[in-house]
Amino acid sequence: MAESQKPIGVAVLGLGNVGSEVVRILEADAKDLAARVGAPLELRGIGVRRVADDRGVPVELLTDDIDALVARDDVDIVVELMGPVKPASKAILAALENGKSVVTANKALLAQSAGKLAETAEKAGVDLYFEAAVAGAIPVIRPLTQSLAGDTVLRVAGIVNGTTNYILSAMNDTGADYDSALADASALGYAEADPTADVEGHDAAAKAAILASIAFHTRVTADDVYCEGITKVTAEDFESAKALGCTIKLLSICERVNGADGNQSVSARVYPALVPLDHPLAAVGGAFNAVVVEAAAAGRLMFYGQGAGGAPTASAVLGDLVMAARNRVHGGRGPRESKYAKLPIAPIGVIPTRYYVSLYVSDKPGVLSSVAAEFAKREVSIAEVRQEGVVNEGGERVGARIAVLTHRATDAALSETITALESHDAVSSVASVLRMEGAGE
Amino acid sequence: MAESQKPIGVAVLGLGNVGSEVVRILEADAKDLAARVGAPLELRGIGVRRVADDRGVPVELLTDDIDALVARDDVDIVVELMGPVKPASKAILAALENGKSVVTANKALLAQSAGKLAETAEKAGVDLYFEAAVAGAIPVIRPLTQSLAGDTVLRVAGIVNGTTNYILSAMNDTGADYDSALADASALGYAEADPTADVEGHDAAAKAAILASIAFHTRVTADDVYCEGITKVTAEDFESAKALGCTIKLLSICERVNGADGNQSVSARVYPALVPLDHPLAAVGGAFNAVVVEAAAAGRLMFYGQGAGGAPTASAVLGDLVMAARNRVHGGRGPRESKYAKLPIAPIGVIPTRYYVSLYVSDKPGVLSSVAAEFAKREVSIAEVRQEGVVNEGGERVGARIAVLTHRATDAALSETITALESHDAVSSVASVLRMEGAGE
Repeated sequence: MAESQKPIGVAVLGLGNVGSEVVRILEADAKDLAARVGAPLELRGIGVRRVADDRGVPVELLTDDIDALVARDDVDIVVELMGPVKPASKAILAALENGKSVVTANKALLAQSAGKLAETAEKAGVDLYFEAAVAGAIPVIRPLTQSLAGDTVLRVAGIVNGTTNYILSAMNDTGADYDSALADASALGYAEADPTADVEGHDAAAKAAILASIAFHTRVTADDVYCEGITKVTAEDFESAKALGCTIKLLSICERVNGADGNQSVSARVYPALVPLDHPLAAVGGAFNAVVVEAAAAGRLMFYGQGAGGAPTASAVLGDLVMAARNRVHGGRGPRESKYAKLPIAPIGVIPTRYYVSLYVSDKPGVLSSVAAEFAKREVSIAEVRQEGVVNEGGERVGARIAVLTHRATDAALSETITALESHDAVSSVASVLRMEGAGE
Repeated sequence: MAESQKPIGVAVLGLGNVGSEVVRILEADAKDLAARVGAPLELRGIGVRRVADDRGVPVELLTDDIDALVARDDVDIVVELMGPVKPASKAILAALENGKSVVTANKALLAQSAGKLAETAEKAGVDLYFEAAVAGAIPVIRPLTQSLAGDTVLRVAGIVNGTTNYILSAMNDTGADYDSALADASALGYAEADPTADVEGHDAAAKAAILASIAFHTRVTADDVYCEGITKVTAEDFESAKALGCTIKLLSICERVNGADGNQSVSARVYPALVPLDHPLAAVGGAFNAVVVEAAAAGRLMFYGQGAGGAPTASAVLGDLVMAARNRVHGGRGPRESKYAKLPIAPIGVIPTRYYVSLYVSDKPGVLSSVAAEFAKREVSIAEVRQEGVVNEGGERVGARIAVLTHRATDAALSETITALESHDAVSSVASVLRMEGAGE
């Protein structure tokens, strides 16, 4: 191997968990990485907000002048791990315009501006890699972009946010309610001080946008993703889930939708869903991630591993870095963005799904019939129904609870049904409404 | 996308399950594939042993003159799906020497001659892709070659042979013995008329050689792989497995071995192993494949899906074909072979593993002690032992059965222990000897 080759200059932006691990491995495994690339990787500088001598790296590598760092002539590849979208966007665009290849893990930025970034990379003839943006160490971007490049992806469904999966796993295993599971997750460092991006599903939605863009060769941004978080999931929902042989997971789902008119569109959506216990995603617990891909020829594939954390994410970053560096040494570029299909985005209303609905009703004759009629009116077919009495603390029967599992119906028809039930005379409250993943009709 | 680009000429060698499916998809998805490649893929010819008009493709595409087909000026990429090693080798080498990129699924050939093929590809400056050679549709080669290019792979353990997994799953689920499970598998088309390559582990060993080569940047051939098949696995072994909370799977294991002297080596081995039911590979049933990869930074990753069959294997072939074609259109090449590490092959004897041993012994005082002494003499520490009486048909006690689970010890020490036990006075027979996967010390 040509270790006498001109070294490849690397700049790392950001020195958090992931950045520190990338810098550590660049140093510790320098010889191996050089052999794999065909030239040594040399760290030219690390962009940080605060230059100080307590950062665990030689202080002379640090700089807070990101603009100067990404413009340096001896930098070939910029690794962006800063986090906030605006400075990351500025730095990446500057790097690409300066002819540097870029490796980034910035899912929020990609979900918003992948088009602009890809265009800039294309114009400059450089690589833009982002395996680490979705599901940490788990190879997902590369399999979708390359391994399945000759297949037709039908559906991608994944657990791609570790924080919410940790919270939901805890609720499932301990019966805890949402607030106390979140508090535990925060105390253990699994949830950030401000957990909004995770618990409201925004992080999962950004990843859904990235996955859908690649899987369907179509530009999908975070704004195109229908998104419900996990803040309204209750301990009672988990009891219902158990009764149905299910657990509840926050899923990012990307789907090729075949319209009645023969035209295809793309659905990207995030919501907490009932997942049958025999489904491969049901067993993915704690902070782990998993992605199930269904393709016309390949059938169902599953990818599983650690979706977050410094070292696992650094593994994905370094894989991209080695690939970008190999391209510098040997010539050539990684796969370009492929957005030729330009499929329209399907609104959530047209998506067929199964719903689980739990209602508290007054305990009078004819209630079940009139509740069932609300479903029937909107052509929502009921698959299973259970009615049980509700008693107060004195043991006196005060009402009933009706739990309905529907067959597949459009989200719009189901939403209308729920709206009607909420204002129905005999219904005192709609206790839970959950979609169900991958279970029959 | 530049669909006005000069088309990329493709030759397919072999028209079995996989070849037929590749040809079908090339035709059915031509527009999509052209958009992804940036130029149309045009099928120039199909190499077959028998040219006839009942092959389901236009007869004018067929030729039995493979030499001429792979030398055609208008062929850019050759897809080799013939099967037998010798003609495949000849055709691939000729194709590479003629400057064609090659996509192949030929694991036996790769496990034998990957070095020669890679060298020839390198000299010609063309691509050699073989994602379909291991685990069918499941992306494994590309993740190992690219996604983990910046990480240190520690271990790869996989179920990569569908036939044996089908047989072992059936034995586990039904209690059937090996012969009847094999007969069923043959009747259902899961085993070939001559199942030797599968049941003796040769197919799994070829795949282990390919995986180890890539994971450890070292040339590993099929001859370097220690290989035991499944023909000696008994219904009684499965009973023992169940008692231990395990099942039995044929595993292909590739491992980075840290020697006592500080030097590293590579172990590649195939054998039926006890797999604890909570291990992710235990649940991989029927004809499915799964590969677990452990890397220093990424931690444990798992890849799961259909490991064989026409359509799944075609998916992997077409992914490679699109990548090779993109490189033709845009310039550049896929990752070169990386064999810089040149680690030595570790003999099976130095590999530490846990053993399960079941013995029939005479029912005399002191037998357990003298059996245990054979283990102790070779520094094999016993973790668990169970002794139970054996009665004949008349209900009379005629001997005892001793089942031992050891702690980790070297394979050599364990083999010596077994040899000693086989000639031990009090031991009437050694009924089973099984290694155990990934369970503690």
